[in-house]
Amino acid sequence: MTSDLGPNATSAESKAGVWNQKPAPTDESPASSGAAAEGELDLVDRWWRAANYLSVGQIYLRANPLLRRPLDPEDTKSRLLGHWGTTPGLNFVYAHLNRVIRRDRQEMLFIAGPGHGGPAVVANAWLEGTYPEIYSNVGGGADGLAELFRQFSYPGGIPSHAAPESPGSISEGGELGYSLAHAYGSVFDNPKLITAVVIGDGEAETGPLAASWHSHNFLDPVADGAVLPILHLNGYKIANPTVLARMPEAQLEQLLKGYGHKPLFVTVEDPDNTAQAHLDFARALDECLAEIRSIQEECRGSRNQDEDAPRWPMIVLRSPKGWTGPRVVDGKQVEGTWRSHQVPLDKVRTDPGHLAQLQEWLESYRPEELFDDGGRLRADVAANAPKGDLRMSATPHANGGVLLRDLKLPDYDRHAVEVTRPGVERVSPMITLGSWLRDVIAANPDTFRLFGPDETASNRLQNVYEATDKVWQYRIDALDEHLARAGRVMEVLSEHLCQGWLEGYLLTGRHGVFSCYEAFIHIVDSMFNQHAKWLKVHRALPWRQPVASLNYLLSSHVWQQDHNGFSHQDPGFIDHAVNKKAEVIRVYLPPDANTLLSVMEHCLRSRDYVNIVVSGKQPSPIWLGPEEAAHHCRRGLGIWAFAGSEVPGEEPDVVLACAGDVPTVETVAAAELLKAGAPGLKVRVVNVVDLMRLQDSGEHPHGLTARDFEGIFTADKPIIFAYHGYPALIHRLTYRRTNQEGLHVRGYKEEGTTTTPFDMAMLNGIDRFQLAIDAIDRVPGLAEKHSMLRQGLQDRRIKALNHTRKHGEDPEEIRNWSLA
Amino acid sequence: MTSDLGPNATSAESKAGVWNQKPAPTDESPASSGAAAEGELDLVDRWWRAANYLSVGQIYLRANPLLRRPLDPEDTKSRLLGHWGTTPGLNFVYAHLNRVIRRDRQEMLFIAGPGHGGPAVVANAWLEGTYPEIYSNVGGGADGLAELFRQFSYPGGIPSHAAPESPGSISEGGELGYSLAHAYGSVFDNPKLITAVVIGDGEAETGPLAASWHSHNFLDPVADGAVLPILHLNGYKIANPTVLARMPEAQLEQLLKGYGHKPLFVTVEDPDNTAQAHLDFARALDECLAEIRSIQEECRGSRNQDEDAPRWPMIVLRSPKGWTGPRVVDGKQVEGTWRSHQVPLDKVRTDPGHLAQLQEWLESYRPEELFDDGGRLRADVAANAPKGDLRMSATPHANGGVLLRDLKLPDYDRHAVEVTRPGVERVSPMITLGSWLRDVIAANPDTFRLFGPDETASNRLQNVYEATDKVWQYRIDALDEHLARAGRVMEVLSEHLCQGWLEGYLLTGRHGVFSCYEAFIHIVDSMFNQHAKWLKVHRALPWRQPVASLNYLLSSHVWQQDHNGFSHQDPGFIDHAVNKKAEVIRVYLPPDANTLLSVMEHCLRSRDYVNIVVSGKQPSPIWLGPEEAAHHCRRGLGIWAFAGSEVPGEEPDVVLACAGDVPTVETVAAAELLKAGAPGLKVRVVNVVDLMRLQDSGEHPHGLTARDFEGIFTADKPIIFAYHGYPALIHRLTYRRTNQEGLHVRGYKEEGTTTTPFDMAMLNGIDRFQLAIDAIDRVPGLAEKHSMLRQGLQDRRIKALNHTRKHGEDPEEIRNWSLA
Repeated sequence: MTSDLGPNATSAESKAGVWNQKPAPTDESPASSGAAAEGELDLVDRWWRAANYLSVGQIYLRANPLLRRPLDPEDTKSRLLGHWGTTPGLNFVYAHLNRVIRRDRQEMLFIAGPGHGGPAVVANAWLEGTYPEIYSNVGGGADGLAELFRQFSYPGGIPSHAAPESPGSISEGGELGYSLAHAYGSVFDNPKLITAVVIGDGEAETGPLAASWHSHNFLDPVADGAVLPILHLNGYKIANPTVLARMPEAQLEQLLKGYGHKPLFVTVEDPDNTAQAHLDFARALDECLAEIRSIQEECRGSRNQDEDAPRWPMIVLRSPKGWTGPRVVDGKQVEGTWRSHQVPLDKVRTDPGHLAQLQEWLESYRPEELFDDGGRLRADVAANAPKGDLRMSATPHANGGVLLRDLKLPDYDRHAVEVTRPGVERVSPMITLGSWLRDVIAANPDTFRLFGPDETASNRLQNVYEATDKVWQYRIDALDEHLARAGRVMEVLSEHLCQGWLEGYLLTGRHGVFSCYEAFIHIVDSMFNQHAKWLKVHRALPWRQPVASLNYLLSSHVWQQDHNGFSHQDPGFIDHAVNKKAEVIRVYLPPDANTLLSVMEHCLRSRDYVNIVVSGKQPSPIWLGPEEAAHHCRRGLGIWAFAGSEVPGEEPDVVLACAGDVPTVETVAAAELLKAGAPGLKVRVVNVVDLMRLQDSGEHPHGLTARDFEGIFTADKPIIFAYHGYPALIHRLTYRRTNQEGLHVRGYKEEGTTTTPFDMAMLNGIDRFQLAIDAIDRVPGLAEKHSMLRQGLQDRRIKALNHTRKHGEDPEEIRNWSLA
Repeated sequence: MTSDLGPNATSAESKAGVWNQKPAPTDESPASSGAAAEGELDLVDRWWRAANYLSVGQIYLRANPLLRRPLDPEDTKSRLLGHWGTTPGLNFVYAHLNRVIRRDRQEMLFIAGPGHGGPAVVANAWLEGTYPEIYSNVGGGADGLAELFRQFSYPGGIPSHAAPESPGSISEGGELGYSLAHAYGSVFDNPKLITAVVIGDGEAETGPLAASWHSHNFLDPVADGAVLPILHLNGYKIANPTVLARMPEAQLEQLLKGYGHKPLFVTVEDPDNTAQAHLDFARALDECLAEIRSIQEECRGSRNQDEDAPRWPMIVLRSPKGWTGPRVVDGKQVEGTWRSHQVPLDKVRTDPGHLAQLQEWLESYRPEELFDDGGRLRADVAANAPKGDLRMSATPHANGGVLLRDLKLPDYDRHAVEVTRPGVERVSPMITLGSWLRDVIAANPDTFRLFGPDETASNRLQNVYEATDKVWQYRIDALDEHLARAGRVMEVLSEHLCQGWLEGYLLTGRHGVFSCYEAFIHIVDSMFNQHAKWLKVHRALPWRQPVASLNYLLSSHVWQQDHNGFSHQDPGFIDHAVNKKAEVIRVYLPPDANTLLSVMEHCLRSRDYVNIVVSGKQPSPIWLGPEEAAHHCRRGLGIWAFAGSEVPGEEPDVVLACAGDVPTVETVAAAELLKAGAPGLKVRVVNVVDLMRLQDSGEHPHGLTARDFEGIFTADKPIIFAYHGYPALIHRLTYRRTNQEGLHVRGYKEEGTTTTPFDMAMLNGIDRFQLAIDAIDRVPGLAEKHSMLRQGLQDRRIKALNHTRKHGEDPEEIRNWSLA
């Protein structure tokens, strides 16, 4: 059994792979292997040792990187902050993946799921030459090595997780649980890619990761690539064993089969017998790749739509935590226990025994075989690196902006609603948007997807099903509607999966929208945090190309929850998002269908942002014609002359401002009430679409200058601001504005219950009657002059409340109201 | 085979149960059953029909509840907002549980996991008489029934989910995914309780639910009760099939076995053959209960510690969505499809055919057999209800305040640190707290637990292990430390599980603390939302007794992330929490170990709050002796004379305020710099422990009056406020205060990187040098007078930054600083 598996072997023979000509079950004792195979695995082993050496160096050293002289305490870092435990396992997998990438010229992406995998990711990127190409201060040679080591977990340096700074990474390693979802996102519409994702057994205890195992039901083997999950059981988290590592192996096998996978187990029984470990893992990897290709070939040929979903292969790698590190320290076992999680030797500066052990540990990798005298990687180590873009650290899939194509955005005019008079026509903004998104999907059949937790139709986007279906691989019944093996809509009852898939999809170069109930988007607050932080860092890295923005489309919002009641009411995601860097965050509250179209088109063209768009789904008045709407959205806010009662050239007496669809209806209605009841009162109505316009231009790129702000909101007139969310945010955004004194904000104040939309507005005081009363109370002299009007508004308010309670619906005067 | 299974049967014979004398495999065709069994199941069936009738009534009717005359469109609600799909399945399970509760006098708690289970929960509570006992307007009889129907999903009425208003509920049904974690929380330290939790197959797609399956590894069969999961596969979510229902059954079985359970499958093959369904489910239920008791008896006897974890039984109930509802509507199949999710007949007001179908549907339950002429439940239906507290709707376990015992709180004095001079002694607040928590655990061996995602030791609470261990049921190795079958510490790498377990634990009457990295508590933002909303509603219900507060102890906070860097920095949970009702939320930022002890003791005594406590874990200065600390915490904030340079009886020139441990160190140091450099400057130092004191007394129960606020912060002097989190919150909390103009806040502004703590403070401008410079710049005339001092502070600032970047640690002047 011989085979030339050199770096450039690409023939069909070599593709078949030496290990899988006759795949041996991994749980049997291995057959003897040929010399070429051994040579190939020697190369893998050298790479692994080099990566381990560089990893230990990053954790410990700030000088003497090649051990040219015995280690001195001063060569080590004064604060030891890295993590060793997971690192050798990641390096092991990476080294092996390189073998098959070279052999097969396979496009692969690597995702490091376990926490604190930074040293491994960086080490391999350096070995592949990518790191020096990107960061010239960390080049090859002794100086570069010294800097590579110094910068790690050092002030001003790089973190101990995979991060935007890490070439080849699309998955932040700081907060755990998203690696597998990211992996699936990366291969959707990416048919040539295989993403190898190492899943930590600690990470595997998280909810998002546990749910992610079902992702293959949403992967189309024809048009999508493949994910190769490698569950890395090293037994321990920070301080505890892990659930998956400790359950009986038979149970674990059931679990993974239950998830729909075909697991191959590679268990490192003897940590010293690395040759056996290499052999076992290489076999398993070859078997997995063969199986993946076989599934793809079969499905891409003529798959029977009635067949069960394919059972994708995966690997369970059971290896000691801190493998190849110090076995025993101060009399306690370290390798193979949680004690190797962070730094196995924590007193190298003060304990000569620890320092000697560190020297011994580093030398165990035989650095002289790995680096030449100048500190450059030897050719017979470097030979394990794939070439060019095939290097996982240099793959364009991990720098998705390189691959990104602009969406073809069809004109939305034909979906926009012509307006005869503002506020008369009523349509559902979401249904209108759904029609345009249908066209977007049709025009971009492999670069755009819609993600949602079983709510696409509930959020009224069902028109997209005229152009596409929902992806589903398990059985499809005759009764099912819009389910198919392939499709542009991803529906699963997990906000975590929607978010994780979309992040992976965007960061590898495609576009998408996540539509969700407003209240439940908080489920992914923390994932949003990490993505916004990723974007902030990403934007500052010249080598990272801009990616499509992450677009949240929040419907079924706080003001229209009816029977769902209190649990479904929470407009606070905007507040949460605004804490993140202004350069990354955009918030839009389009007041009607036409403005929603304009806003969404803008969002789909944008790059490197998180766009939050909030829109109701119920039929609601159209205020602006298509052109006016586009103009209004470009400005981000504006005075609505049709709704107010201003006298040209004169200052208004009061400003009624609004942001959000329901507040806009109530504000326009309040202005009507005032016009009718208090003729001569100069009311200005201002609608805000782009919330960030309220901030000062110095604080947000979209912020208005002080002068423009005053031109719209006046310097000293009362402002009654009806806002979609928690009122504090409006105060916060306008904190530095003059006329803060005059600002009175109405918004959601957690007074929700089971009720109708208008009743809900009343409970929270943003209803038209209350807004009008607010204006009367704040314009000097008006309350006295119009005490009857004020009383009348109060009475109508109470009447409406009583009607609703009695009849279960809003009174006719509200239901049928439109701008006269 | 005969057995008297009447309502009060409690003999050993009856306990054995007729169905499990010889448990038949549920997948075989059933043996013929005896007459008594049939009679018993007839009773169950009558109950089921009654519950279904009441559920349909709630969804559709507002009058004519007993069908005394043919239905008129006006009898139906004008807006149909309920959900039918999951309801009959929940009713079915509930009816069956009642049978075994009666038979065995078994304490049981019912949790409805599927969304929109409200009609079922309410119907059963009404049938059991609990609803009328609590809500006198919804009594028995026709009027009560009419009101029961009317209030559901009606303005001012009750929501369509299980909610605090629902007797017997501890789990909000609005946001899905937490039922199983709640169930486990409810049985920890509750050895007699079995919690039956119905898990929706939609819900089962969520991350938190997927992770929850592993909870049994953290349940001690000796001291804890048991959970009986009933996975309800009705096939569809809102608009899609569900993953678990569609995967091949063999795969599902592997999955559930892989989770560590022993699943029993009950499949309703023929929806019309309800007798068979009853028989199958009763058998499975009996088998599960027998198995649970057998596990408990075995473990509670003399369990071999080396044994594998027990395999707890569970039921998979496969029944049609919308079972017993309209089979076909307008020519489309409804029963058994997603079309029954909401209202199967949606045009009853306008389409006579629909109305007739509704009438037929309601009559199919034979209401005349269920209710007497007065609309009262017939005795031969009511007989299926357990008595008194055994009713699941009336169980005290669902109203945990009834069972709540005060914690025995040991004096913390012996752990407090005596102070010779403020700021000289240094200890880790978290280590100190850990010692006291050890005593708390020892004094409360079955009513208090500590929950955390593998971070108890990382957060430096390891002293608790002197009194307890971490719970673990899988294999325990010789190498493991502090792992045991029983223990007070719950560690799993899932914030969702920690939160869900703790919520269940608190709401059933015990106490706990959730310790977590500050940044990652955002993972449970949405769960926090729901719990805070639960508490808000719960507090307003007179029949709900106060429960222990949910205590978050957030350590490893934003200012001390070092190598973890940007991904681990986010102090925004406080902002998120403050959006919720003021009456429920408390936020504490104790500046040292002694104040942390005092604050935590207060939190452990409190009821019905969410307490958020943020504290660092690194050794840091002690400012106040034990008594001063207690006094300071009682006041919530105070002037620190020792740190300032005020002249008694005179107004200060500047106020340096601080909230948070790191900001406090920097503020005191800044005051020292000013004292030394600008003698005669009157500096006031104010420390804030209880953040809510900043709000106005009208907005928060802890808020200071305007007068008290001015007494501390002055009416017009500059305030330099160094705050732990995002600065906007301080502006928000002090929004209505005079002297807003003078307030200058420094806090976290997303400038994180990999660095040292002091460098981090510098990057965000809350370091001592910057704060002193801020004061100089804001006190009129000072910048001119002390330009040299200002320049010197700038220089030292830059020097410190350079030192850190070069040496990897803060300069000595910072490291060894203490109050002179």
